[in-house]
Amino acid sequence: MAAEMVRVKNTGLRGVTVADTKISYIDGENGVLIYRGYRIEELAERSTFLETVFLLLNGHLPKEVELARFEAQVLEARELPGFILESMEKFPKRTDPMDVLQASVPMLAMADPDLADDSREANVRKAVRLIARIPAAVAAWHRIRNGEKPLAPDSALSHAANFLWQLTGQKPTAEVARDFDLCLVLHADHTFNASTFACREVVSTNAHIYAGVAAGVGALSGSLHGGANERVMKMILQLETELPSVEDVAPWVKKMIDGGGIIMGMGHAVYKTFDPRGKILKEMSRRLTQKAGHPKWYEYLVRIEQEGIKEFTARGKTGISTNVDFYSGSVYASMGIPVDIMTPVFAISRISGWCAHIIEEKFAEAQDKPALYRPEAEYVGNYCGEMGCVYQPMSARG
Amino acid sequence: MAAEMVRVKNTGLRGVTVADTKISYIDGENGVLIYRGYRIEELAERSTFLETVFLLLNGHLPKEVELARFEAQVLEARELPGFILESMEKFPKRTDPMDVLQASVPMLAMADPDLADDSREANVRKAVRLIARIPAAVAAWHRIRNGEKPLAPDSALSHAANFLWQLTGQKPTAEVARDFDLCLVLHADHTFNASTFACREVVSTNAHIYAGVAAGVGALSGSLHGGANERVMKMILQLETELPSVEDVAPWVKKMIDGGGIIMGMGHAVYKTFDPRGKILKEMSRRLTQKAGHPKWYEYLVRIEQEGIKEFTARGKTGISTNVDFYSGSVYASMGIPVDIMTPVFAISRISGWCAHIIEEKFAEAQDKPALYRPEAEYVGNYCGEMGCVYQPMSARG
Repeated sequence: MAAEMVRVKNTGLRGVTVADTKISYIDGENGVLIYRGYRIEELAERSTFLETVFLLLNGHLPKEVELARFEAQVLEARELPGFILESMEKFPKRTDPMDVLQASVPMLAMADPDLADDSREANVRKAVRLIARIPAAVAAWHRIRNGEKPLAPDSALSHAANFLWQLTGQKPTAEVARDFDLCLVLHADHTFNASTFACREVVSTNAHIYAGVAAGVGALSGSLHGGANERVMKMILQLETELPSVEDVAPWVKKMIDGGGIIMGMGHAVYKTFDPRGKILKEMSRRLTQKAGHPKWYEYLVRIEQEGIKEFTARGKTGISTNVDFYSGSVYASMGIPVDIMTPVFAISRISGWCAHIIEEKFAEAQDKPALYRPEAEYVGNYCGEMGCVYQPMSARG
Repeated sequence: MAAEMVRVKNTGLRGVTVADTKISYIDGENGVLIYRGYRIEELAERSTFLETVFLLLNGHLPKEVELARFEAQVLEARELPGFILESMEKFPKRTDPMDVLQASVPMLAMADPDLADDSREANVRKAVRLIARIPAAVAAWHRIRNGEKPLAPDSALSHAANFLWQLTGQKPTAEVARDFDLCLVLHADHTFNASTFACREVVSTNAHIYAGVAAGVGALSGSLHGGANERVMKMILQLETELPSVEDVAPWVKKMIDGGGIIMGMGHAVYKTFDPRGKILKEMSRRLTQKAGHPKWYEYLVRIEQEGIKEFTARGKTGISTNVDFYSGSVYASMGIPVDIMTPVFAISRISGWCAHIIEEKFAEAQDKPALYRPEAEYVGNYCGEMGCVYQPMSARG
């Protein structure tokens, strides 16, 4: 227990260390992100999403037989329970995909045969079902809202390829499938961000994993957490019509920074030099925008990055660089992913980190782990009694 | 911002003051709970639930015309959108009511015409709809799981009476309706508990009110937060069959405390002398168990309370008394509320506090209010590089 009262009022817990974790680590000064001891660059180059998920959940890279078993488990769990699709058919067609996703998570709980079993093993089984089914739920809603039938999963396709197939009805090339898989690796975990903390906070009450994940989806739906890549992409599409030449970017950036001081997708709360994920996505954006016939998207982005850094530096704001969201929107758009599915795609990846953190929260080794998160607030409102509020009968209220 | 790093690791943020609030205040040493300046005892005696909700949301007691308008708004919003009922019809009948409630909240979002408007006024309108419709959703699921048709709201009935009607199909007596309304007053808010903090944390990302409330429902579903009154009631029902005489309670309590040291519904994280809500519920339990033909429930509870305090004190554990959950189970059971609807009933009341806190979080006056809750974690896992993990090809993994 804290020995004395600690006051960190209205700081959003910045700089307040609340727990131990073995899952991931960020060195913001040096642009380092590691999952379970492995650098993100190495996992990006050599691993796959499902291998990375295994690592996040279990703490070690799988042997061949372990990975094969794990992939088979995810593949087997892909199919959505029928009542969820039937419910989605009833939803208003204009509903935001994140609201549908948040409703889907407790529905997935209803269908889980292990729901009442809170052992570590059962939680890993539940995590596998969540990781398999959240992409299916996102894809199904996108089809349903467009008046199309949801597509059955294709057991010949990888986890990444199958999502693109179920979403768009087109089987991706091997290159696109590999690139999308890599995007999932890059977004899988990021230590105690707002959505992951929400997951951990909810399950600290002994709530089940689905209850925690639904909270994570809720937090991710907020514009200060998810959705930045969507806004970057909208910015690019707007610039494409308003600034016919890439040469017009420089004055536009200057005006933006002079006006509000913000460029979508630039700057990060944690990374003070560069975001290691952004570097990888930049190269991917170059390749994919070209293949998709939109090389200009990349050209705008590169120019905004250059001019943005220049203008920020000129104003004494060093250390502002592009983040993970800056190039990812153009990558997803080049793959045919609609703008408002980009935050759900974040969830399709981050569900792995959320589950790993929920399991860590539930089975933490620390002996002094407390019952649940319950911070203090300072009451600055009215007081009752002689000096404060007195309950007046209604007729006497002025 | 916090000037330096603060370490409160693994304490669940006990004793860590994270925000200002004007909504409610607890003095645990003296058994005091106040809402917006008014003591809970005074509100219990003189207010009603909807008047208390108005107070929580708006910061002052309503004038007559304000209350009449507010009550009319709640009454008008009672009806559940049809697609939610249609979805519930598809759900597995054995689903826990809390999972259905968590799924219902994002579905209510889908039906809200103000969803995209994040002004204070629109958030109050959304709060009114949540307060009106969460009872309807709980009642509807209870009917549907029993193969019965959900009942339409009765505009002649008060908020409290209408819920009991929609749940049980029986119109409560004026006395029971008044008592249930009082139970709702007592549970309406309790400052930064786990579910309220989850609500605030989620909306600190700019997520909408429904996304936050769904997180609150998830946290409340955990056994360390909600559900204690349910377990007290199960204990009483078990004792009724196993200990025919109330005289057998004393040795049973002694054995329980010697065994695990815990008696359901005794002790509280915050109240160190008594829980002011428990006192009011005790008297209500006496009256209602008698009217319902179960006076023995009350007799067991009183005896457990007496013997529990005696045995805890004899072991040097002073300050352990009965909490809000100790008598409330017997109160709800006497009203015909099934045991697994008791936590949803908690939500029917607490939704008012959740909404008040969400609105406070969204529109806090503090100039230095941060963007969102994002605490730190200490990484205690593996490191990469020469001394740590090296990505081995699969064939080389031992």
